[in-house]
Amino acid sequence: MKDILNTLAQTIEARKGADPESSYVARLLGQGDEAVLKKIMEEATEVVMAVKDGDNQHLVYELADLWFHCLVLLGAHGLHPDDILAELTRREGISGVVEKASRNYVS
Amino acid sequence: MKDILNTLAQTIEARKGADPESSYVARLLGQGDEAVLKKIMEEATEVVMAVKDGDNQHLVYELADLWFHCLVLLGAHGLHPDDILAELTRREGISGVVEKASRNYVS
Amino acid sequence: MKDILNTLAQTIEARKGADPESSYVARLLGQGDEAVLKKIMEEATEVVMAVKDGDNQHLVYELADLWFHCLVLLGAHGLHPDDILAELTRREGISGVVEKASRNYVS
Amino acid sequence: MKDILNTLAQTIEARKGADPESSYVARLLGQGDEAVLKKIMEEATEVVMAVKDGDNQHLVYELADLWFHCLVLLGAHGLHPDDILAELTRREGISGVVEKASRNYVS
Repeated sequence: MKDILNTLAQTIEARKGADPESSYVARLLGQGDEAVLKKIMEEATEVVMAVKDGDNQHLVYELADLWFHCLVLLGAHGLHPDDILAELTRREGISGVVEKASRNYVS
Repeated sequence: MKDILNTLAQTIEARKGADPESSYVARLLGQGDEAVLKKIMEEATEVVMAVKDGDNQHLVYELADLWFHCLVLLGAHGLHPDDILAELTRREGISGVVEKASRNYVS
Repeated sequence: MKDILNTLAQTIEARKGADPESSYVARLLGQGDEAVLKKIMEEATEVVMAVKDGDNQHLVYELADLWFHCLVLLGAHGLHPDDILAELTRREGISGVVEKASRNYVS
Repeated sequence: MKDILNTLAQTIEARKGADPESSYVARLLGQGDEAVLKKIMEEATEVVMAVKDGDNQHLVYELADLWFHCLVLLGAHGLHPDDILAELTRREGISGVVEKASRNYVS
């Protein structure tokens, strides 16, 4: 199931330069970075609201929206979800060792 | 590499109820939902700033921060990153078919 | 000029229950709190972008948007801009005295 | 009471370049634009939470926080709250006339 991030990245890549009429992603990419960023902030706001509503199903839905728009932003910048996963792996690997004194998320 | 989401979820789970002095995650979880949500909004804001600064390396870093705090939120609510991936998979599967008329992220 | 806040509050009040087709405010109020809150977050995001763009004129424009939607939110909750101004006045009055040790914005 | 915006603007102006140890505003200004913007986004997030909690008193408090940090941002950019009020006045004045077709907040 985790290959879904890769699958979505490939689809987003394929939508670059496509007819804005043909897909949501093509249309959003065509509107530029600010439009994608505003969607990310909107979905983050909806995450806040879903938590406040105490609705876990809605929360999952909004988090999926948020992550999806992060994938679109990555694609727009020639990046890949593996870049995020690699950064998280890097931090996890050094957790408890190098970052101990400064910024240790995991331990 | 994609198992990092699962690894982090397990670590976050293990930090529940741990001494707040002992880890960033235990401390954040101890502060409650609003603290986690404020971190998510803060990291989303830093994503906006990184894009505006045109700094891709910083962007990856801030997106990793954003996703990490989403994992903390999931853990706090008894959810798992697989719940997000399953929702994304569900949408991708029906893309171009059922959601065509309404909300079709992928096609 | 400062009576503009009062003037806008009166206009917003008058739009409550008006035909959503007839005005932006009536339409927004008709969509409920979440719609107004999403606009506030959107305008705050645009404030961030305007600062990052180094565009002071745009910044003033986006801050006016942000404050306007705060006025709509106040109106939706039976509040008035004077409530904000009174709270700011209260803090300014005690600044340097009572709030010194805790939360002293002004001094 | 409405002169509070002007009073606060004067105080913020006086804090520019002051010892960061001496006041919250001096400290925040010393941290630069991103710190002020992150506070604005944080306060906007707290406005969302206050509405969701259905707590009007808390809402006024958070809106005052939000507006206060907007005043700090204005001060940091050589602007004044009158710039926002003038922009709001401009829009109100042309409401129902010029902006009718495009973006008419007030009517």
